Amino acid sequence: MTLPSSVHPFDQALQLTPAGQNEPDTWLGATSPAYWNMVGPYGGTTAATAVQALMQHPDLLGEPVALTVNYASATVEGPFKIKATPVRTNRSTQHWVLSLTQTDVQGQTATVMTATAMTALRRDTWQTNDMPIPLVPAPQNIPRTHLKRSMEWLNRYDMRFVAGCVPEQWDGTGSGSLTQLWVRDEPQRPLDYASLTSLSDVFYPRIWLRRATHVPAGTVSMTIYFHASKGQLLESGTGFLLAQAQAQAFRNGFFDQTAQLWSEAGTLLVSSTQLVYFKN
Amino acid sequence: MTLPSSVHPFDQALQLTPAGQNEPDTWLGATSPAYWNMVGPYGGTTAATAVQALMQHPDLLGEPVALTVNYASATVEGPFKIKATPVRTNRSTQHWVLSLTQTDVQGQTATVMTATAMTALRRDTWQTNDMPIPLVPAPQNIPRTHLKRSMEWLNRYDMRFVAGCVPEQWDGTGSGSLTQLWVRDEPQRPLDYASLTSLSDVFYPRIWLRRATHVPAGTVSMTIYFHASKGQLLESGTGFLLAQAQAQAFRNGFFDQTAQLWSEAGTLLVSSTQLVYFKN
Repeated sequence: MTLPSSVHPFDQALQLTPAGQNEPDTWLGATSPAYWNMVGPYGGTTAATAVQALMQHPDLLGEPVALTVNYASATVEGPFKIKATPVRTNRSTQHWVLSLTQTDVQGQTATVMTATAMTALRRDTWQTNDMPIPLVPAPQNIPRTHLKRSMEWLNRYDMRFVAGCVPEQWDGTGSGSLTQLWVRDEPQRPLDYASLTSLSDVFYPRIWLRRATHVPAGTVSMTIYFHASKGQLLESGTGFLLAQAQAQAFRNGFFDQTAQLWSEAGTLLVSSTQLVYFKN
Repeated sequence: MTLPSSVHPFDQALQLTPAGQNEPDTWLGATSPAYWNMVGPYGGTTAATAVQALMQHPDLLGEPVALTVNYASATVEGPFKIKATPVRTNRSTQHWVLSLTQTDVQGQTATVMTATAMTALRRDTWQTNDMPIPLVPAPQNIPRTHLKRSMEWLNRYDMRFVAGCVPEQWDGTGSGSLTQLWVRDEPQRPLDYASLTSLSDVFYPRIWLRRATHVPAGTVSMTIYFHASKGQLLESGTGFLLAQAQAQAFRNGFFDQTAQLWSEAGTLLVSSTQLVYFKN
């Protein structure tokens, strides 16, 4: 589908149209060249599609508070279907089951992504932040990092690394797995739950940093807890987020990562975890 | 169903029988009084039921590596059905969608838990632990903590708190959210993926510790990454695990928690996160 060029590439990537009355809870979309990764779309955008689907469901209650996506197989270029079913609606919370499928040239349908989500009506309660934003230089004082341009999605984000940038030498000398970077959409775009989802997957594989060795790796599961209310998204606006990720264990072909995203004002907007496949 | 009293209560709680040919991928089970919490079964056991279901599925490939469970509504005393469907099987990984349902007296079926899981064939790779076990006294040197006996499931675990035990005074003086405890099944039972799942939910609500205030709270979503191979489960045997949990943000009726479980030998067996509902 072609949209005016004034539409932000992220909004173009997330365009979903209802599949029709015969397929309830289902939307049609397509992968976006603007967010292309090495052999498929950037996984953050795919995850954001799940949020996009439930956000435009007529039966939606509240806002996203939890999302888990599982990348079941490689997404290929072209159209997909996403189904978002509210399987349980309580007084103030709602539980969703989602799946993203693609049909191959033989007409076979393959599950590309499974997901669950929870939405809820947010209400005022006691609050505190037990994970304060790290003391780092302001994004305005850090030059923009231009990573390898061959992956188109990297051009969709303004990244300014504070710590743990992609190794310049693949010489096996890595020692830690902590990355911190300021990041925002490029071009700038007001933060919403879909873009926050996509931004939660912005980190390159921890194993590259930890080993200073370039091995095949890809996220297989990601969980995001949204601590940001709609008001806090508005406050963040088009500002930078501080994104931090760190691994806990590498073993038997998988490693995990915990991640946090704060607004420039220091509000923890998201906490997230990932499990990532790696080779060797 | 009645089993010999020589069967461990955890194995009794996890008894599942196939629902029959008309209901593929489906098993019948029942809540266990031995793991009763305040108003329903201990959530760890419910989560373990998901692992139990896929572990006995004839089409299982590999071992659990990731599990997300969402508690959609209160589980009530009595029978339930659990459905575990392998929606995508790759060469070395498999993706599962699960749901646990109960039927009320009016014959209405309610979704009690949704879940996704990933299993995989583990293989030898480069490995390292970026989250070493904290230096704490050995479990043999710490007296067993006997928490409020009114919740039956607490009697099913031998808990020895190192830090962050349940506040003795509910006086609002809390300052941190870190808990560390040694824990194992009571009576002792060799560790497996199901019991490791249940143990990952062993922490009382972080908000009680952080505020030293007793408010209603309950887990709504939990994600577990299993770093332990079958061999490492065998090595852990009936030994204690060091279980650690800490919150990151409390806001708008929810808080999150990151958690780790190590074997006595210092192997990180599990990393986990939770989102927990709280009132006030």
